[in-house]
Formats: sequence, C-alpha cells, structure tokens
Amino acid sequence: MSEKLEPLFASLTHGIYVVGVAAGGRKNAFTAAWVMQSSFKPPMLALSINPLHSSFALLKAGGGFTVNVLRSGQKELAMHFGTPMVGNKLDSIAWREAARGAPILDEAMAWFECELAGECPSGDHVLVLGQVVNGGLLEAHASPMNYREVAAEESAKRLLPGGFRP
Amino acid sequence: MSEKLEPLFASLTHGIYVVGVAAGGRKNAFTAAWVMQSSFKPPMLALSINPLHSSFALLKAGGGFTVNVLRSGQKELAMHFGTPMVGNKLDSIAWREAARGAPILDEAMAWFECELAGECPSGDHVLVLGQVVNGGLLEAHASPMNYREVAAEESAKRLLPGGFRP
Repeated sequence: MSEKLEPLFASLTHGIYVVGVAAGGRKNAFTAAWVMQSSFKPPMLALSINPLHSSFALLKAGGGFTVNVLRSGQKELAMHFGTPMVGNKLDSIAWREAARGAPILDEAMAWFECELAGECPSGDHVLVLGQVVNGGLLEAHASPMNYREVAAEESAKRLLPGGFRP
Repeated sequence: MSEKLEPLFASLTHGIYVVGVAAGGRKNAFTAAWVMQSSFKPPMLALSINPLHSSFALLKAGGGFTVNVLRSGQKELAMHFGTPMVGNKLDSIAWREAARGAPILDEAMAWFECELAGECPSGDHVLVLGQVVNGGLLEAHASPMNYREVAAEESAKRLLPGGFRP
C-alpha cells in the first residue's frame, strides 16, 4: 500500500490480537489486527492472513485457530508476536492449550477457539472464517488494545512487518 | 448470539461506518460495525452484511459500495442509519455521489469507494470483499468512532437491530 493511502486507511478501527495455531505437534502464534466478527448464528470470526506466512499452513493443517485479545497497554506482547525471531515466540510466554492444541495466552484479556469454516482470497491476503466453538473472558473490566496504540510509534512501525501493519 | 456470549464478543474492536449502495437510480445507506481492511495490494476492505437486508441486493446490483467512516461523537448519525424507518434515510442528510453513484456523507471523517471483488458466506451473514478504487480523508485529525461508544448505551442497543449490533 502506498504511503499516501496510509492516513486514509488509518481511519479504520482494528484491535490487536495474537492468533494461535497448532498442527502435528508444532505450534505458533502471531500478532494480527485484521480480525472481526462476521456472524451471529453461529458466532464466527473473520481473520485476514498472509498466505505466505508459515502459520497459514499450520492453521489449515490444524483446521482451526485461537484468537487472543490483547488489552490496552500490552504493547510489548504485541511486538513480541509481531516481530520475526529465531526460535519459537511461545517459549518465553505463559500459555496453555485450547481443546485442539492452539495456544491460549495467560495474559490475554479474552480468547476464542475457532474451527476453520471457510476461506476466501482477498488480494495479497486470505480471509479465513472461523466458527467460535469455545472462548473465555479472562479480564472482564479491561479495555481491549486498539491498533492505534502501536501504530502511533515509529519504532513499532519499523518492527512490525506487512502481516501486522495496515 | 446468546446473551452469555455478548461480553466475550464485546472484547473485539470494531469501528462504526455508514455503508452506501446504489443501483438503477435507487440508493441506500446503513450503519455497519463489521468492516476491516483485508489486503494491502490491492487495498481491499471486507464487510460482513446480512444478506436479508435490502441493501445487499442493491450492493450486488450496483457492483460496489462506499464506506463512510464516522468520527467519535457522531452517535446520532450512527443511530439514524442504524434504525429502520419509513422513507429514505438519505433524505435528511447531506451527501454526494461517488463515481459509481453510492453516497458519500458530507459529515464522514473519511470515505472509501469499493468495487465488489468477491463474496463468501459466513453463517447468517455474507462477507463482501471490496477493492478500494477511490477514497478521501475529510477530517485528518478526527478520532474514528469505536463501536463501544454506542454499545454502552442501553437505548442504542434497543434501537440497533442485528445487522449492526455484535
């Protein structure tokens, strides 16, 4: 996306989430902003993901994903899962497994477990649809993080690659 | 969606938009919260829409839609376009036509014109993909409205039917 378009697209409102995937003993998690609800009945979430990301293959192989909602102020956690690194990003973070193995972060304010229910190409991304089969509100009075909290910092922008930065 | 699930889904972050459609001389606009960016290249937006809504037929017939971004404080405008009424909701509002005829609200802080680029069923809604072909930032320093601004008011909840309320 051209720099000229950035201020326009910055008027859209997105949260900050850590999406978890698991298949065949492998697990991963990555920061994502392009998540929204897409159905009431059944309750579903839509996630736009870069299909070149290694987690996309894990998501498909595992047939589902978790969505961990970050709360306002958890910038470090957002950056941790939004920055490429050597080794597994989950090693230094407290988490447990959802029923199908994808990670639920102890520090998330809420989490959803989704079964893969469809997908649809969308330009350089793929829209993945997940039917919500389980979930929990861990901090009922917390305020969810808004993407603007990290977008405003130049250091955050530099660290966060395409999959994360609108 | 059951009431039990509402506090969990309220942890998701959505903005508030007025989506405009036009076909064969007919125009309409409605409030929507389930909008997000879904691609960088080309820039695209995803919108989850109730297919039973009359605007869905207009969107398909017209082959596109506009997304008008509301700014913080524009609760009345959000309610106006989120409440069923007799007559056309656009009659009492200042607007102009985008290139393909869908309305751009004078009071929006930003707008996008999208060409219909795909669709995908998602439970009781349909995810519509729009390639952004034009847009404008009308108020560069405004803060976009967050769905929470209207969700917190019981009167807003009563007025806003399924298509708007997560």
